[in-house]
Amino acid sequence: MNDSNSDTQQLLKSAVGQAAAARVASGSVIGLGTGSTAAFAIEHLGRRLRAGDLTDVRGVPTSFDAANLARRNGIPLTTMDDTPRIHVAIDGADEVDPHLALIKGGGAAHTQEKIIDAHADLFIVIVDDKKLVQRLGSTFAVPVELLPMAVVPVTRAIERLGGHPQLRMGAKKIGPLITDQGNMLLDVTFDAIDDPAHLERTLNNIPGVVENGLFVGLADLVLVGEIVDGETHVRELSRSTA
Amino acid sequence: MNDSNSDTQQLLKSAVGQAAAARVASGSVIGLGTGSTAAFAIEHLGRRLRAGDLTDVRGVPTSFDAANLARRNGIPLTTMDDTPRIHVAIDGADEVDPHLALIKGGGAAHTQEKIIDAHADLFIVIVDDKKLVQRLGSTFAVPVELLPMAVVPVTRAIERLGGHPQLRMGAKKIGPLITDQGNMLLDVTFDAIDDPAHLERTLNNIPGVVENGLFVGLADLVLVGEIVDGETHVRELSRSTA
Repeated sequence: MNDSNSDTQQLLKSAVGQAAAARVASGSVIGLGTGSTAAFAIEHLGRRLRAGDLTDVRGVPTSFDAANLARRNGIPLTTMDDTPRIHVAIDGADEVDPHLALIKGGGAAHTQEKIIDAHADLFIVIVDDKKLVQRLGSTFAVPVELLPMAVVPVTRAIERLGGHPQLRMGAKKIGPLITDQGNMLLDVTFDAIDDPAHLERTLNNIPGVVENGLFVGLADLVLVGEIVDGETHVRELSRSTA
Repeated sequence: MNDSNSDTQQLLKSAVGQAAAARVASGSVIGLGTGSTAAFAIEHLGRRLRAGDLTDVRGVPTSFDAANLARRNGIPLTTMDDTPRIHVAIDGADEVDPHLALIKGGGAAHTQEKIIDAHADLFIVIVDDKKLVQRLGSTFAVPVELLPMAVVPVTRAIERLGGHPQLRMGAKKIGPLITDQGNMLLDVTFDAIDDPAHLERTLNNIPGVVENGLFVGLADLVLVGEIVDGETHVRELSRSTA
């Protein structure tokens, strides 16, 4: 099995990034996702802009990183305050289930991502086929962003729900990871997630929780990169087919 | 009808503050609420400490203001990280319904308040009788704390729920009010709040919302200050009697 940074996975990520970028129309406002797969979409959008194939688009970034990547690729940026309508958002995911429910937040950007992805007219998720799971939580913990003062009570509340929370530690800094919003993250494993929609609401109702990484009922279209007969192929999953 | 700052209302607020402070046992960790009524509880706790009637207590403040008031009244402070158990929280409310559901957030402190009040073994609410309503939302809008980047999408989402949101403006500063957490607030009026528990969860599940001011199922005891036969009287409402 290839790891997620192998040449094959990179090829698949680029393919779905390109496929998503190809669906963007001139004149659009685009939600720009965060992470290694979304980065390919931003690069392909930049190529279309430079080629003159795409004009008059603006991006709304979901993180500092997405903003910088967009700048480097020549995509003009805007905000939801300036352009309240987002026509399409393109973003990756850490897990996708058969109902197109997602876990996101491996990049600690799920709060901004959910604000922007949920607000878009069309939310396109791009993943390689390793992200498909039968059941959310199989391979990935649920990230929960919380106010720093609330680590103790939120941890207790999640444990009462049957979850096993771990404070995400930073790298290249001492102590916990701090999000773009100045908050902390718990990565929560559950023995089984039977009802992701209910869990998403329950987690968000714990005082001190800002946003969790379950995205239920938000994805309109999932583009899955896979190898078929030795060739790169992009499969489409939409809510009607899910 | 007296306004809420009249001498009578001050007397009632002091009476319930004193009644709540009287229920605190030595050795307790106390959640310290925010606002004009909770301030009386903090003052009365300080008096008991100075009189030697109460010893070995520590306070967990729900705001910068509560922390400063506690310091001025000689109450040692701690945090939930240092003392994970809070024995009792004492806090005011803007509205209390017959089921002891609350609206809080007039002081823009409801997020920290809910984290601490919800985590306490016993949550005592102290109000004057003007805060009692048959139906939440009758006299007070529901405050919703949100990330600044999310004002547009959260406003739209709340309007889709039938709410009428207004960005709370600051005073002694230009532009919107900023909370102790660096966020903004929408004050939302609804034509009718039929199911406060459902609305609380629905608002908290909107991406970008940090916490709203509906407190459903959290208050264990409400102490109501009222005038009976010309005398100050403290009435007790508990969940069993509600």
